[in-house]
Amino acid sequence: MSVDRIARLRELLEEPLLVTSSVNVRYLTGFDSSIAALFIEPERARLFTDFRYFEAAQGIEGVETVMTKRSLMAWLGETLSGRVGFEANVLPWSFAEDLRAAGLDLVPRTGLVEQLRAVKDEGELEAIRKCCAITDRMFERLVTEIPFVARREVDVAWDIQRLFREEGAEALSFESIVGSGATGSHPHARAGDKVIETGELVVIDTGCNVGGYMSDYTRTLATGELSGEMEEAYAVVLAAQLAGLGAIRAGVTGVDADAAARAVIDGSSFPGTFGHGLGHGLGLDVHEAPRLSTESLDTLAPGNVVTVEPGIYVSGRFGIRIEDDVVVTEDGLENPVRFTKELLTVA
Amino acid sequence: MSVDRIARLRELLEEPLLVTSSVNVRYLTGFDSSIAALFIEPERARLFTDFRYFEAAQGIEGVETVMTKRSLMAWLGETLSGRVGFEANVLPWSFAEDLRAAGLDLVPRTGLVEQLRAVKDEGELEAIRKCCAITDRMFERLVTEIPFVARREVDVAWDIQRLFREEGAEALSFESIVGSGATGSHPHARAGDKVIETGELVVIDTGCNVGGYMSDYTRTLATGELSGEMEEAYAVVLAAQLAGLGAIRAGVTGVDADAAARAVIDGSSFPGTFGHGLGHGLGLDVHEAPRLSTESLDTLAPGNVVTVEPGIYVSGRFGIRIEDDVVVTEDGLENPVRFTKELLTVA
Repeated sequence: MSVDRIARLRELLEEPLLVTSSVNVRYLTGFDSSIAALFIEPERARLFTDFRYFEAAQGIEGVETVMTKRSLMAWLGETLSGRVGFEANVLPWSFAEDLRAAGLDLVPRTGLVEQLRAVKDEGELEAIRKCCAITDRMFERLVTEIPFVARREVDVAWDIQRLFREEGAEALSFESIVGSGATGSHPHARAGDKVIETGELVVIDTGCNVGGYMSDYTRTLATGELSGEMEEAYAVVLAAQLAGLGAIRAGVTGVDADAAARAVIDGSSFPGTFGHGLGHGLGLDVHEAPRLSTESLDTLAPGNVVTVEPGIYVSGRFGIRIEDDVVVTEDGLENPVRFTKELLTVA
Repeated sequence: MSVDRIARLRELLEEPLLVTSSVNVRYLTGFDSSIAALFIEPERARLFTDFRYFEAAQGIEGVETVMTKRSLMAWLGETLSGRVGFEANVLPWSFAEDLRAAGLDLVPRTGLVEQLRAVKDEGELEAIRKCCAITDRMFERLVTEIPFVARREVDVAWDIQRLFREEGAEALSFESIVGSGATGSHPHARAGDKVIETGELVVIDTGCNVGGYMSDYTRTLATGELSGEMEEAYAVVLAAQLAGLGAIRAGVTGVDADAAARAVIDGSSFPGTFGHGLGHGLGLDVHEAPRLSTESLDTLAPGNVVTVEPGIYVSGRFGIRIEDDVVVTEDGLENPVRFTKELLTVA
């Protein structure tokens, strides 16, 4: 794995590259630590880490492991020299300046490893499909086994974690969002102490991690009978999500995919209530390239994995979001998400 | 809270400061989001965030909330001007360069908010004590209720998470470390698929989060009878930990506190096996100022909260670490950790 990915990265380089993003280091080497840097030269790749991680970093094909003192940047300044590319959108300003002061001829580079990561190989797709299968089972159990009404959002969030564990997840992708009633109108509210009541909409945004790869789903559930306005809004979000999925294929821009879903909401009784982008790439990070939004500069390619997640947020009253994770193909997409998007009522 | 903290920060500033560390923003405003920046001027404080977080960011005393477009940095470049301090050890190099290109006269600053955060106020100490009380109860139940032998490390890690939840934790501080046998000799190995066997040492490093504040404990447990070497090593680590605790008080350097514990290990039959620093500050981040290590530049002050966590790591065979969280006082420390450091045997 590492040999192949590093070889593809070398083809993109005009000078040796210092990789300091821990996720990028993991992608290139399989080595998972926040205290590591990878230095890629044409004939050589060196992984720098400290005592605590040194043993775990042994035996990576095509990579020499070097033990550093605790202060990684000071050590790199003493060890490296000449013209060196660095990850300018990752490395903090002062660390770059320290390397420059140590005599390196630094060249800012951006997105080189991210560009490789955006196109998943079959092993990565398998890991993501596995996450989706676990997430499907978690949601099936969530809506049949777990009580919602008269419990706090945070209690439901803990149940989600337990169900994920029982279904084989290694960890959660992120802290689950359980947003009921007015809380659901904050797109990124976490689960709080609010008690879930009858007749609310509950936004559940969660996912799991297997081998570093992620799922990221959202479903919105009803607790008892809803107002006609809420039911209408749900139907609009579902139509927008289907329109978004329908627009996804290789060659489509992130702007155009977003626009396909946004047009449905803006043409409904809820114009302007979809206040975030349609989706984002998903892989070792829960937010990565490519982006689907009004400001995206990306164009979809086969092997991209993206979320498709339109929403309607009515301030102080309710929120609705529906989200799948899909694999972009030449002529459309593969959707590994099986859990229903029908409006379900839970007790 | 925010008014007071921002006022203390203003006393440290020579020019307006752009705070981009999300933890620092949280400390100063109570607002918890990864997509936010706080701009502190002498007479004004503005919190910039986007649509998704705008509602949640309302009503912070002494702070105006401004809704930005999605690209926060581009927006700040258009909005701010003149001489502006920035968090140079946090902000990625290219973001700083974009702000400079937009005409800002940028001044790199480091550690200003971190310096305030290192000294906890009574409310912060209460939150940390609460985390410790929960962690004590979790460990009491872990060693009495949970089977270890013939189970995978990762299964024990999930039990830890469940117990924390049942005892009132909001979340874990970090992914628990459960390192049995040879795995324990990697100080930062997580919990894996390794099955725990009889006669091993199991390093448990975990903690919980209440209101953003953290605990971070380590205990090392025995599964059945140990070799004489393991028992001796345990006694050495315990002696080193007590020596470390004994050295902690206001005015002591991080180097000297570290040395007090290190001398015990280096003077034992296990010299050179304590390959990391003695401890670190603990608060909104699980690793923050001050540091206790051979390379520390810090001196302890009343109100610092630090971990004290020496260890012995015998490569490929076993690891031992014992860790408390303590509050530095004028003449010593307050140790809110009650769980025993006797060598316990679990089944």
